[in-house]
Amino acid sequence: MANSATPYGLLQDAAIALDGTDIVWVGARQGLPTEYAEWPVEDFGDRLITPALIDAHTHVVFGGNRAQEFEMRLNGASYEEIARAGGGILSTVNATRSASEETLLSDAQTRVDALIAEGVSTIEIKSGYGLDTETELKMLRVARRIGDARPVRIRTSFLGAHAVPPEFTAQPDEYIREVCIPTLREAHAQGLVDAVDGFCEGIAFTPSQIAQVFDVAQELGLPVKLHAEQLSNLGGAQLAASYGALSADHIEYLEADGVLAMAQAGTAATLLPGAFYTLRETQLPPVDLLRQQGVPIVLATDCNPGSSPLTSLLLTMNMGCTLFRLTPEEALLGVTRNAARALGLAEQGTVAPGQRADLAVWDIEHPAELAYRVGFNPLYKRIFGGLA
Amino acid sequence: MANSATPYGLLQDAAIALDGTDIVWVGARQGLPTEYAEWPVEDFGDRLITPALIDAHTHVVFGGNRAQEFEMRLNGASYEEIARAGGGILSTVNATRSASEETLLSDAQTRVDALIAEGVSTIEIKSGYGLDTETELKMLRVARRIGDARPVRIRTSFLGAHAVPPEFTAQPDEYIREVCIPTLREAHAQGLVDAVDGFCEGIAFTPSQIAQVFDVAQELGLPVKLHAEQLSNLGGAQLAASYGALSADHIEYLEADGVLAMAQAGTAATLLPGAFYTLRETQLPPVDLLRQQGVPIVLATDCNPGSSPLTSLLLTMNMGCTLFRLTPEEALLGVTRNAARALGLAEQGTVAPGQRADLAVWDIEHPAELAYRVGFNPLYKRIFGGLA
Ligand SMILES: [Zn+2]
Ligand SMILES: [Zn+2]
Repeated sequence: MANSATPYGLLQDAAIALDGTDIVWVGARQGLPTEYAEWPVEDFGDRLITPALIDAHTHVVFGGNRAQEFEMRLNGASYEEIARAGGGILSTVNATRSASEETLLSDAQTRVDALIAEGVSTIEIKSGYGLDTETELKMLRVARRIGDARPVRIRTSFLGAHAVPPEFTAQPDEYIREVCIPTLREAHAQGLVDAVDGFCEGIAFTPSQIAQVFDVAQELGLPVKLHAEQLSNLGGAQLAASYGALSADHIEYLEADGVLAMAQAGTAATLLPGAFYTLRETQLPPVDLLRQQGVPIVLATDCNPGSSPLTSLLLTMNMGCTLFRLTPEEALLGVTRNAARALGLAEQGTVAPGQRADLAVWDIEHPAELAYRVGFNPLYKRIFGGLA
Repeated sequence: MANSATPYGLLQDAAIALDGTDIVWVGARQGLPTEYAEWPVEDFGDRLITPALIDAHTHVVFGGNRAQEFEMRLNGASYEEIARAGGGILSTVNATRSASEETLLSDAQTRVDALIAEGVSTIEIKSGYGLDTETELKMLRVARRIGDARPVRIRTSFLGAHAVPPEFTAQPDEYIREVCIPTLREAHAQGLVDAVDGFCEGIAFTPSQIAQVFDVAQELGLPVKLHAEQLSNLGGAQLAASYGALSADHIEYLEADGVLAMAQAGTAATLLPGAFYTLRETQLPPVDLLRQQGVPIVLATDCNPGSSPLTSLLLTMNMGCTLFRLTPEEALLGVTRNAARALGLAEQGTVAPGQRADLAVWDIEHPAELAYRVGFNPLYKRIFGGLA
């Protein structure tokens, strides 16, 4: 994925030299420098090696699940009936608030383990189901602890501006001022925040409310990203771009002006086909415009209990192709090189000297097979920081 | 799944008594008869036990894969360009004809293993990529050998009437008469056929051509089933029902008269959401009509290299709910009790005395979770014929 001159930057009959946690050499096996000739060798036969995968947008830390709500809806219940039965995002907020840190950790680990089993090395995890200081901090601590408990790199995003909690119904400004921003400062002070996220939408927060949070992020030196243009066009992507955002995510309703703003700011487009599929959305993200303007396209699971209970990044790649008409190469870039970029990680996402030795070895002949199959995992071995 | 009086026929705090390969008792643990009290016990804690899953419609035996064609299409190639590059079903026919029996077996086993890993005990496998006597027999032998090599029950379907082979272009009647029917007779004589299938469609065979094959099936005492009304309504389901078919499969374009005919004949409706998804079909099968008429609804992967390279029956359940609006209970019935019925298997598909001891033990709290999650496998243990 490091060289765009050939499809996938694919090398045939290649060698990769790893020195501890890093890649130090990549190229045709015949050209392996003599200095590496005596190093211990692992022969992967005819298998394909790619960068390990990166899931750049998840909400894997949450309490409970929403299977009952899923079932009620399919049995014909209205949104009102589901809300009365305690469903919707607030059911997850309640379950997350009441769950112990240990329960949140062990539940999230089952989801993280499913991702790791598909060759994932790096996962972004958001807060945003606490919506109070204590629970937002608890979620971020759990996210950090996953990185200690499992062989995976975690990047946290503070998503206090995810929804208006029941204590502040019809008072979103007060929530932003009295809870969200103070919690961000506290979480940052505790070293729990790698980036700041928000949900800019009619059912969540306005651009000006998001801007208040982003102003604080900027003051703290934290990069921003945004859930934008998922259900309507509020200009969220342009707002995010004006803060030099790492990414604008969802963006089904993004239009040309927003794409241009993202291109100029270097903001990546993170597409989330699992939510598109689960919500039976029909409005497609502006893939052709993103391509024309050279906006890096990322694919992520958006793993969350409501709109995308999805824990397969390979299936996400297939959905990116089948539903959004990405090419298999774009799909693979979206979970490797471009995903690393959307997390601000310069040392991951390609197989090149100086990169982390995070690799996935697959029982396939051609990289297009990763996106082609549905519900199949051809991972042979994952190498994380040089270790299998 | 044996008792429709409560949702899923679910029992809380239950016991199941297995005697060798069979279930001999099921009920509340407190009511366990004293004759079983001293039997060895395995405690599954708070886990959920369902019948093992059944995939009632697959084409898992085939040569090659179609990843290149998938990629060409997403890079903008027309169907004509793909056909010129050797794509389409005939590429699979060529690859299947030229593959050795051993290669076909080992390739199919990777797909079967993926299904088994999700608690599948029984898989229907079709021929239909040979379209000549030698290769059709080879495919059916491979299907039978999978049942010897893996702990799984295989039911074969002869699908000689799948496509018109290149040797008979524009001569489908001659193909049916000179190849398809003689091959069916030979395959039956060799004990390789459990049922007879066909593809009734403008791009395949007419109802009268299918009827010729079904007449021979009837003469041989073999049950029939049919790929019907996938792309248009040719009256295939009615034809199938007139032969007392086990199932009519796909049926997106089925209308009320076909549903009635199926209901009267006791023919099941096998829905294949993986093909619907992959082909980006928008015409939905008539689920409400099927429900109203009491037609048993089955869900299957349709695993095949062209229109459904899908090897997850759990994902199929989610797609059945998300895309076709089945309830989670209907989805589970569709891969257990109703799937067994569509294969003519009276001793599988429920947890009840006299049934095979084919069980799936899941790390979940409620059966709705099986269909709710996307790309996640909560299988704790599979029991096949009484053995873990
Ligand atoms: Zn999200
Ligand atoms: Zn089929």
